[in-house]
Amino acid sequence: MRCDVVAVGTELLLGQIIDSNSAWLGEQLAAAGIDSLQQVKVGDNQARIVAALRSRLAEADAVIVCGGLGPTHDDITREAIAEVMGVELEFHPEIADVIAKMFAGRGRTMSDNNLRQAMVPKGASIIEQKRGTAPGLVCPVGDKVVYAVPGVPWELYEMFERTILPDLRARSGDTSAIASRVLRTWGESESGLNEKLQGIIDELDGIGNPTLAFLASGWEGIKVRLTAKAATRAEVDSLLDAWESRVRAVVGEFVFGVNDDTMETVVLDMLRTRGLTIGVAESVTGGLVAGRLTATPGASDVVRGGVVAYASDVKFELLNVTPGPVVNEETARTMANEIRRVVGADVGLALTGVAGPAEQDGRKVGTLCMAIAFPDGSVETGTVMLPGERKMMRELSVISSLNFLRHALLRRRA
Amino acid sequence: MRCDVVAVGTELLLGQIIDSNSAWLGEQLAAAGIDSLQQVKVGDNQARIVAALRSRLAEADAVIVCGGLGPTHDDITREAIAEVMGVELEFHPEIADVIAKMFAGRGRTMSDNNLRQAMVPKGASIIEQKRGTAPGLVCPVGDKVVYAVPGVPWELYEMFERTILPDLRARSGDTSAIASRVLRTWGESESGLNEKLQGIIDELDGIGNPTLAFLASGWEGIKVRLTAKAATRAEVDSLLDAWESRVRAVVGEFVFGVNDDTMETVVLDMLRTRGLTIGVAESVTGGLVAGRLTATPGASDVVRGGVVAYASDVKFELLNVTPGPVVNEETARTMANEIRRVVGADVGLALTGVAGPAEQDGRKVGTLCMAIAFPDGSVETGTVMLPGERKMMRELSVISSLNFLRHALLRRRA
Repeated sequence: MRCDVVAVGTELLLGQIIDSNSAWLGEQLAAAGIDSLQQVKVGDNQARIVAALRSRLAEADAVIVCGGLGPTHDDITREAIAEVMGVELEFHPEIADVIAKMFAGRGRTMSDNNLRQAMVPKGASIIEQKRGTAPGLVCPVGDKVVYAVPGVPWELYEMFERTILPDLRARSGDTSAIASRVLRTWGESESGLNEKLQGIIDELDGIGNPTLAFLASGWEGIKVRLTAKAATRAEVDSLLDAWESRVRAVVGEFVFGVNDDTMETVVLDMLRTRGLTIGVAESVTGGLVAGRLTATPGASDVVRGGVVAYASDVKFELLNVTPGPVVNEETARTMANEIRRVVGADVGLALTGVAGPAEQDGRKVGTLCMAIAFPDGSVETGTVMLPGERKMMRELSVISSLNFLRHALLRRRA
Repeated sequence: MRCDVVAVGTELLLGQIIDSNSAWLGEQLAAAGIDSLQQVKVGDNQARIVAALRSRLAEADAVIVCGGLGPTHDDITREAIAEVMGVELEFHPEIADVIAKMFAGRGRTMSDNNLRQAMVPKGASIIEQKRGTAPGLVCPVGDKVVYAVPGVPWELYEMFERTILPDLRARSGDTSAIASRVLRTWGESESGLNEKLQGIIDELDGIGNPTLAFLASGWEGIKVRLTAKAATRAEVDSLLDAWESRVRAVVGEFVFGVNDDTMETVVLDMLRTRGLTIGVAESVTGGLVAGRLTATPGASDVVRGGVVAYASDVKFELLNVTPGPVVNEETARTMANEIRRVVGADVGLALTGVAGPAEQDGRKVGTLCMAIAFPDGSVETGTVMLPGERKMMRELSVISSLNFLRHALLRRRA
């Protein structure tokens, strides 16, 4: 089964928006065992959309076209698909009713151009709209199919999962269940994980099910994705369970979470379980650690706050660091102890380091010193060397310090 | 002149990397008056790369192919281009020498597969490599041309600007100068800017030179880009000067910078010029304002540090806020005054607001209260309503508060 993608929108070609929809679709299709071998961007031009659809239909079994379903005059995906199907567009009053009710429900007046979204190529069926005003379309073309979805990501995601993926799988005649499990890791490079898991990868290459893939995701860590296929969902889950155990047996120390877990939700949950609040003292990251912890709704029951001690004498005066060089574990230790007192937190996390461009205190760019102070007075400290220029070094400092905290909390069971 | 783009890499189709190169190229090409009407992603498969190149060459005058020039066995862009040109690959010892010297210079051993990067289709010329090991290629195909560049963005950008763009413009026979100027704005929506500038846009549509485009860029603000063309660079600059003045006359209050300026560099420069240091007291943004100010190298001469007062009683205890509701200008005022004292800064910037998901203190999600305290004891406060879910509200709070500071500093001339 092969499903190519056509992303429609002049703004994509002009670089005003980066097309991330086709990458997302490619990832989902690959996880479902469906090939996506060419993905195309075209502008809001009917002849070129038609040509792109015909060219993709000539090679693939199915095509997903994203965008151009809105109400304005340059939204012409419906017209282009009708031309490819060799049919007319029909007005569907029941779709118009739904759109009118959506506007009424938001207390807004519906302008007439919204009725364009109720036009459907004859012979096509609709994918009911749940998040936006435009419905999606399922458009048979001979024994192949074109799916049309809005370019708005959360509308597209929902329609893909609810209708397109099940339809593609039904067309492929594949009645098996398929699912993925993502192990979230930090602390080892992609090539390092690859090397450690080589035995398992070779074994899986031989069996072919589950498959294993790595996805490096910046300061979200490196994802190890297992995708399994079996007759029933229960069998899929038991396959995933078995191979997750195998993978964890080798690289478990680097796995901080599963699927939608993030480093900050994991750490916040661990603190919450242990009844601990936290304060953060930051220098090199300038507030990004606290910023990330508080990105999670509900962080306020755990996060007391923090101090950004960017200038050295703020460290000396507010956090009682001894005047002198500040990129070292001793400074981090004092900062971690003091932030507990300053914001009234149980646990203190502190970071000091060198993001560059120049060295500081004789320490190289990329140096990160961390400390964690606990209610019993004990303090753990550590130093790591991080790669990358200023922005990357600071971002990797955030996930590295939270992972350092995670390990320290693991050693102190809830 | 039309130049399409082919991005090569199976990882792009699998969604492991989002193709931002073709969007960047589209933006540069559009600014140079060159159409890019179809952009394609294909995997590391020679037959499909060849088919994509042929299909693009059938429609466009030129094609830029990104990626697949590296040393590994799945880097096959060179082979695919040679097939399209109908020629053999030739080994160029002088390229191999350059690569060998690069490895030696970094104290690393060069593995033999790096020599693949010295293979060049017969009849092609090279774009000397300045940032990576692989050279780019200029490959004539009849009266058309294929440019090959590495997929690594900073290698691609440099080769495009140094060689490809001048070559495209020479081929187009266009000897005029062309340049863009970007006005960075904040404080008005894209549709609001559009409406205010409608007269100028209509006038420019009539003349056709310069062109004007909007680029909404999240918490980087909304960019207004003028692109002009004339016989000489001096004439281009004078056109841009004239129309920049026209645009500023209408929406100047929203323009915070030009071209590579960012809100944080602008604000840091204004503080530096006035000899002022700053401290930041944050609640809703949890450290992101300080994080962004310190993203700029050299911020340490201006940024003293800050306090993240996330829990209300940290505001009460550390920043002397009167216990009670905390989302109001009075709380922001106290926080701004106190942060000056706590971190020893000349200027205090404070933010308190509601990022959601729930209301707080009877204030709606999206409420942002700000205050700025000055050395003379005066304080300015303000409240804005921001759109978006939690993440967007927090990010827009960062740029909104820095812009609030910018306006306050403007009123106090250096």
